[in-house]
Amino acid sequence: MKKQLTFLLFITVFALKSAFAQEIPKELENIISPEINKDGTVTFRFLAPKADSVQLTSDFLPPVKVKTRFGLQDGPGTINLTKDKNGLWTYTSKPLESELYSYAFMVDGVRTNDPNSPYALRNSAALTNVFIVGNGRADLYKTNDTPHGTVTHCWYPSAGLKMNRRLTIYTPAGYEQSTDKYPVLYLLHGAGGDEDSWSAHGRAIQIMDNLIAQGKAKPMIVVMPNGNVVQDGGYGQGKDGFYKPEFLLPRSMNGEYEANFMDIVNYVEKIFRVKADKQNRAIAGLSMGGFHTMHVSRYFPNTFDYVGLFSAALMPREDATGKVYSNIDATLKTQKDNGLKLYYITIGKDDFLYQNNVDFRKKLDELGMKYEYLETGEGHIWKLWRIYLADFAPKLFK
Amino acid sequence: MKKQLTFLLFITVFALKSAFAQEIPKELENIISPEINKDGTVTFRFLAPKADSVQLTSDFLPPVKVKTRFGLQDGPGTINLTKDKNGLWTYTSKPLESELYSYAFMVDGVRTNDPNSPYALRNSAALTNVFIVGNGRADLYKTNDTPHGTVTHCWYPSAGLKMNRRLTIYTPAGYEQSTDKYPVLYLLHGAGGDEDSWSAHGRAIQIMDNLIAQGKAKPMIVVMPNGNVVQDGGYGQGKDGFYKPEFLLPRSMNGEYEANFMDIVNYVEKIFRVKADKQNRAIAGLSMGGFHTMHVSRYFPNTFDYVGLFSAALMPREDATGKVYSNIDATLKTQKDNGLKLYYITIGKDDFLYQNNVDFRKKLDELGMKYEYLETGEGHIWKLWRIYLADFAPKLFK
Repeated sequence: MKKQLTFLLFITVFALKSAFAQEIPKELENIISPEINKDGTVTFRFLAPKADSVQLTSDFLPPVKVKTRFGLQDGPGTINLTKDKNGLWTYTSKPLESELYSYAFMVDGVRTNDPNSPYALRNSAALTNVFIVGNGRADLYKTNDTPHGTVTHCWYPSAGLKMNRRLTIYTPAGYEQSTDKYPVLYLLHGAGGDEDSWSAHGRAIQIMDNLIAQGKAKPMIVVMPNGNVVQDGGYGQGKDGFYKPEFLLPRSMNGEYEANFMDIVNYVEKIFRVKADKQNRAIAGLSMGGFHTMHVSRYFPNTFDYVGLFSAALMPREDATGKVYSNIDATLKTQKDNGLKLYYITIGKDDFLYQNNVDFRKKLDELGMKYEYLETGEGHIWKLWRIYLADFAPKLFK
Repeated sequence: MKKQLTFLLFITVFALKSAFAQEIPKELENIISPEINKDGTVTFRFLAPKADSVQLTSDFLPPVKVKTRFGLQDGPGTINLTKDKNGLWTYTSKPLESELYSYAFMVDGVRTNDPNSPYALRNSAALTNVFIVGNGRADLYKTNDTPHGTVTHCWYPSAGLKMNRRLTIYTPAGYEQSTDKYPVLYLLHGAGGDEDSWSAHGRAIQIMDNLIAQGKAKPMIVVMPNGNVVQDGGYGQGKDGFYKPEFLLPRSMNGEYEANFMDIVNYVEKIFRVKADKQNRAIAGLSMGGFHTMHVSRYFPNTFDYVGLFSAALMPREDATGKVYSNIDATLKTQKDNGLKLYYITIGKDDFLYQNNVDFRKKLDELGMKYEYLETGEGHIWKLWRIYLADFAPKLFK
């Protein structure tokens, strides 16, 4: 048997691809999209010979005002692709700032993913493609040629919530070969997210690998739990199977998560080699996770030496436990009196939660509680939460 | 501030969704697709008011013959959806056999994912949606209310390949709390796959959790390595970033992976609590991974007591190492003479590799090497590899 034939025969039936292949000119079989060009421009390609219009929608394009029931909001911009004689639609951007961007196509008004790229993240109920432009900030979001930490998905028993619940845990490079104990950062997701959000959109694994390899952050364990107490595991990971994600699941902001948070800490401190004391525990979260962080850290007011609120949703909520959301000022004062190394607050000027954070800082000022404050541009977006993590992590355990 | 307002304000800007929301009748805002109905039928929904045709393509539909350069092949069938006055296209299937199915939509001839479901797996360069119909075989592919094992993504140093390389490792429920040592199954992917294929398409995590919980398989560690030696990590996980997947990466079947396989075994046996002897080592793989399995197990002919070839690509290949693919008959005979507990071969009757497996079994017969053989219907598809794993794993370490 000829070797070439051997190779050819070995091709598995990718029937969908084959079905397309009948109609597609050979030069179009291997469409590259998106293509990050050397000059920092990005080319998008989409094959749709019968379509009348193909548009790109992406967060690198000038934002458009979108009418929602909450008023006008910024949304990703949209731009037309150009069709060639083969029905291949193309658009090349201007040189882009280094960042992780999201995009989708609109084909005759119907939103679709890029069929030439499998790199997509869940955004609410749908998948959205992503790409990275390097040579700048986003190099921190790439898997570089550094030592790599380990990512573990395990299940902790929650006595309070009466189920085993899935956790994502990062242990830094060298953990397995060492006998050292490590400090721990608990890193909480926002509404609509789950225990995979920080490692997916948040690129927390790459950020920690890179910051540690550069000597900017101490080697630490990062624990990413699931803040939706109705779930045992995140979307598609738990016993409820594949179901349509919701923006805010019931009971996610009613005190139950905070009240049972020590089930997570106890599991981590039993199973992993950690320094199990206040000065080696940090907690931070984005949006709903910032809300959880504020409450967990003052409800257990002598537990965490480092606290980070990223675009935190600091709002009054109904308390199903009857105890977690009470006496906020008094417990914040107790937390302050117990002492802590860092209370860090950060938010973008355009965030719809900005005023809530102004009010909360005023409260802290009145209580005489010190905090570090970072105000950035823009609003309630993952771009900022990656930046905030990269700013916060180097401040820990020093 | 009113509590309802508090909730409303808290909604993050999902601008794309909001942009759609302007045009979509309220009753269509929360489209459920796919919906698994109680009678086992499945309803698919796709909103495309301006489209002239929307089709569903899925592996549950009667296959169609697809013309490829390798001749006619079975491909997923296609069926038309029906449009209502709101532009919502719908199709409801007949009751389906319990299985994990794949699907996509074709909108005016353009393939697209389901915008109402984030559950999709990489198939070659594109994502394909998946769903599970339960109450039968596919219950084994669901995350059920059982104890769960841990999934670890770590990086082993390969001295031979001169890089750290990513591994996916399953440790059974109870591993962390125990001091026991466990047997190990090395489970290898096919061409186009990577270290995440068995846990994604293969549902190996759920299969092992369920088989172990049912007492059908022994608690074991399952190591899922990356068989593409040009990659440090799988698609999107390694230092090469997000790039278009290829069907067969260079150097994946040239002996280098097999020659350096003990780098993986040595790492696992150093880092995890394993029974590090032949009678507690199994190796199995699908397609290219079956080829790797056959070669690794005879090249290290006194290392594995259990060997599984699933639809194995048992074909002659160029050997860049000059040593791995030599003396096949002699090393198989050595492997036989050293003794092993199970040599398992399985393939579907319609597989394009069927005759190669007939020829290989003939060779084993001539050598007097015993094997267990399972012949099934159908061809070179993930459905069978899940079935083969569920048949093979209970035979191990008993």
